[in-house]
Amino acid sequence: MKISLLQYAPQLNNLQANLDAISALMAPSDSDLYVLPELSNSGYNFIDRQNAFDNSESIEDSIYIQRLMALAKNKNAHIVSGFCERDNDKLYNSSVLINSEGVAGLYRKLHLFLNEKDYFEPGNKGLPVFDTPIGKIGMLICFDWMFPEAWRTLALKGAQIIAHPSNLVLPYCQGVTPSYALVNRCYTATANRIGTEGDLTFTGQSVLSDINGKVVIKGSKDESQLLSAEIDISLADSKYVTARNHVFEDRRNDVYGDLNIGTND
Amino acid sequence: MKISLLQYAPQLNNLQANLDAISALMAPSDSDLYVLPELSNSGYNFIDRQNAFDNSESIEDSIYIQRLMALAKNKNAHIVSGFCERDNDKLYNSSVLINSEGVAGLYRKLHLFLNEKDYFEPGNKGLPVFDTPIGKIGMLICFDWMFPEAWRTLALKGAQIIAHPSNLVLPYCQGVTPSYALVNRCYTATANRIGTEGDLTFTGQSVLSDINGKVVIKGSKDESQLLSAEIDISLADSKYVTARNHVFEDRRNDVYGDLNIGTND
Repeated sequence: MKISLLQYAPQLNNLQANLDAISALMAPSDSDLYVLPELSNSGYNFIDRQNAFDNSESIEDSIYIQRLMALAKNKNAHIVSGFCERDNDKLYNSSVLINSEGVAGLYRKLHLFLNEKDYFEPGNKGLPVFDTPIGKIGMLICFDWMFPEAWRTLALKGAQIIAHPSNLVLPYCQGVTPSYALVNRCYTATANRIGTEGDLTFTGQSVLSDINGKVVIKGSKDESQLLSAEIDISLADSKYVTARNHVFEDRRNDVYGDLNIGTND
Repeated sequence: MKISLLQYAPQLNNLQANLDAISALMAPSDSDLYVLPELSNSGYNFIDRQNAFDNSESIEDSIYIQRLMALAKNKNAHIVSGFCERDNDKLYNSSVLINSEGVAGLYRKLHLFLNEKDYFEPGNKGLPVFDTPIGKIGMLICFDWMFPEAWRTLALKGAQIIAHPSNLVLPYCQGVTPSYALVNRCYTATANRIGTEGDLTFTGQSVLSDINGKVVIKGSKDESQLLSAEIDISLADSKYVTARNHVFEDRRNDVYGDLNIGTND
């Protein structure tokens, strides 16, 4: 399958500009899976909660999702995108998995970063994995990178690829996700934004890693880019790192306890 | 405090040569903590279990540990070393924490690699953290690197530094442990051997990482080296990566379950 990471600079308070930028970047491509940045519909650096609220949409009534659905249909593709989500009076920093028929999957960010704690509710949809025609897809968002438990849990639940919409400001994450890909023997796909909003500068360098922790794609620090590669997602199904070492079966849950993989939503 | 990673090529079936090599490398130094490779008393690539047995010692009656104890006394230091351990008729791939008075801590490798499964019992001492005058020390051994749960558990139990005696043959680990240091905000100290035994070539490049995942020391691929640096181990006590993000308190145990940190031996 072909995967693309879409790296651009979402504009705060400008849904239309964001949709236009996404459409333009995707236009010349023909991938099976597109991964877009965090809060790709809204921008990131809200003045206050009201500003976040004004930039949010509900899944059922979202211009952004309707447009991405049309793009997914046009490309016969799946799209993972960060999404400033409104659910009644609550806001979530979410990621949606979109296909030609609509929203096939929803994840709400578990680990909120800095001022996000003032705007968003902590995620309440667990760590779901979605079984799609192109593969089993898990989603994490930006600062979730700091929590190896989250990546491990998704891999244990069968995720062949972990799509990771991001608005990274710290310089660390892009060096860490290849390690998560390696120790979980799955693909990781971090689509990070670029640009500056107020006092925040985002660090780009979107990165796709394979099951051996090899960096397959790495974006620039400050350019809008659509970064594409062919991957064999089925490679993620073998958890043998040697003929006698299955990295999941070798785990010593009897010592460090087991992670909760019993539910999938 | 000053820490040294000792990188050399232990010889199979030659305890005396190994002790001489260790003594010679340590002679000109004055560190507070020395970390030595895995199976540093015995060599690694045993022909069969009998060969491993013949290279093992019991803690109570070990020439190797007696000599390291004398070195620890002479240097007023702590030493972490891999140790081919015999316990009655059983063998363990162990790591010992030695001070001037003897063995202050014992860890037995939880995750055995390839043919080690034929020689050694899986570790049965959990993931202990030892509170010493120079800091709180956890230990892991070589292939344990593949299991983020182990590193996380030690950090959650208060380890300021994770000493990691290794005999690495795969090319991956040295790129991963800095990530573990970063996400756990503790120091990691991988002392890896060099040289070749039969069909195995070890990869050196011993690595010390600080709490920001910065590589403080990196060894060569194939040279005997004593690699030293000053570190402030107390930096590992702050788990704040931002003013509002405490990487342990932000964990979502309600979703992925908690790791077992209830016992310390």
